[in-house]
Amino acid sequence: MSKNQHISMPSIRRLPRYYRFLIELRKSGITRISSMELANRMGLTASQIRQDFNRFGDFGQQGYGYNVDNLIAQIGSILGVDQCSKCILIGAGNLGKALMNQLDFKTMGFELIAAFDISPQVIGQTINGYPVLDFADVGEFCVEHRPQMAILCVPRSAAESIASKLYFLDINCFWNFSHTDISLTHSNIVVENVHLNDSLMILSYKLHQQQENND
Amino acid sequence: MSKNQHISMPSIRRLPRYYRFLIELRKSGITRISSMELANRMGLTASQIRQDFNRFGDFGQQGYGYNVDNLIAQIGSILGVDQCSKCILIGAGNLGKALMNQLDFKTMGFELIAAFDISPQVIGQTINGYPVLDFADVGEFCVEHRPQMAILCVPRSAAESIASKLYFLDINCFWNFSHTDISLTHSNIVVENVHLNDSLMILSYKLHQQQENND
Repeated sequence: MSKNQHISMPSIRRLPRYYRFLIELRKSGITRISSMELANRMGLTASQIRQDFNRFGDFGQQGYGYNVDNLIAQIGSILGVDQCSKCILIGAGNLGKALMNQLDFKTMGFELIAAFDISPQVIGQTINGYPVLDFADVGEFCVEHRPQMAILCVPRSAAESIASKLYFLDINCFWNFSHTDISLTHSNIVVENVHLNDSLMILSYKLHQQQENND
Repeated sequence: MSKNQHISMPSIRRLPRYYRFLIELRKSGITRISSMELANRMGLTASQIRQDFNRFGDFGQQGYGYNVDNLIAQIGSILGVDQCSKCILIGAGNLGKALMNQLDFKTMGFELIAAFDISPQVIGQTINGYPVLDFADVGEFCVEHRPQMAILCVPRSAAESIASKLYFLDINCFWNFSHTDISLTHSNIVVENVHLNDSLMILSYKLHQQQENND
């Protein structure tokens, strides 16, 4: 039974943003901050912040503020970013390359150990230090290295069959960039979908609401 | 005053997923579907679906199901994807290239008219039909072509100043892939953030919850 099971997912989803802001505070030399000051910087209310932090444990002292290092450590621990779970990336096209070049996986709880592709043009390359291997060898690789998570940067048409293959290789955690909901066909897997189309449609909605409001 | 202002954002955020499923249904030749059948396919409850659809208007007939074409048209209209707002993309690196190569902007309410970069290696190229122009010329371009939305695929350090520049060129709608919250420094803009780091940390959380539950 997990210690955080009583915390709602909307609360959890706010944690990475707190974490991001607190890391920035630390970089700028701030060691202690009040809920009010943090609220102003983040565009939230102080009471929202106190409510969120109280749910996760006793992070602060009345009239004294929160210790930034302590908050970072505790939120990091809840998010599991102090762990280092091995992961692989499937599909080293533009999106896969962008992720390999731009993300600091280790600060977010993961160690990327290899990428896989089917294209001879990219197999054998090294991208930002990560080797791109032949997807035909993924089974053998997983048996040997035991990755726990896979990043799916593959077309929609291939996503289901690749997820199934990896599932039978004991990977049941997916960061899914393909435009399909793989969680519907497998139970007991955890998935975080990044559906860029959905995000763009929400932006379209917001833009037209704004225009209607201005009329 | 907008017709959809009484609808909550969580309800709105479910619309793209409905839209995506309905488009797939239409592709497979289905013209009519019950809330129960749609619920089964989407991993939701029929009552949730009826509640959502009732909020947006009268889409169905009791005992007869929903007309798929009609639902697609109505949800598309709420999302504004039947419009065609001009947009530009800033930063034609791997991520920018991935978006240009993989997304069908027109089906999501936008027309991408150009990309901009500062690197001589990429300026002058055409990516999937989209010209990559010199960011130094963005001001003149915006005055002439009046884009309404900008996609920011730029480093965190550059995001604020670029957003400010575009804001003064009358762009107040941003699809933001840089790891910073630009909405905090400008009011009256609409932003949809795609914070990949946040998503990866949430996945880390889910993975460790799953592992604790299995222990």
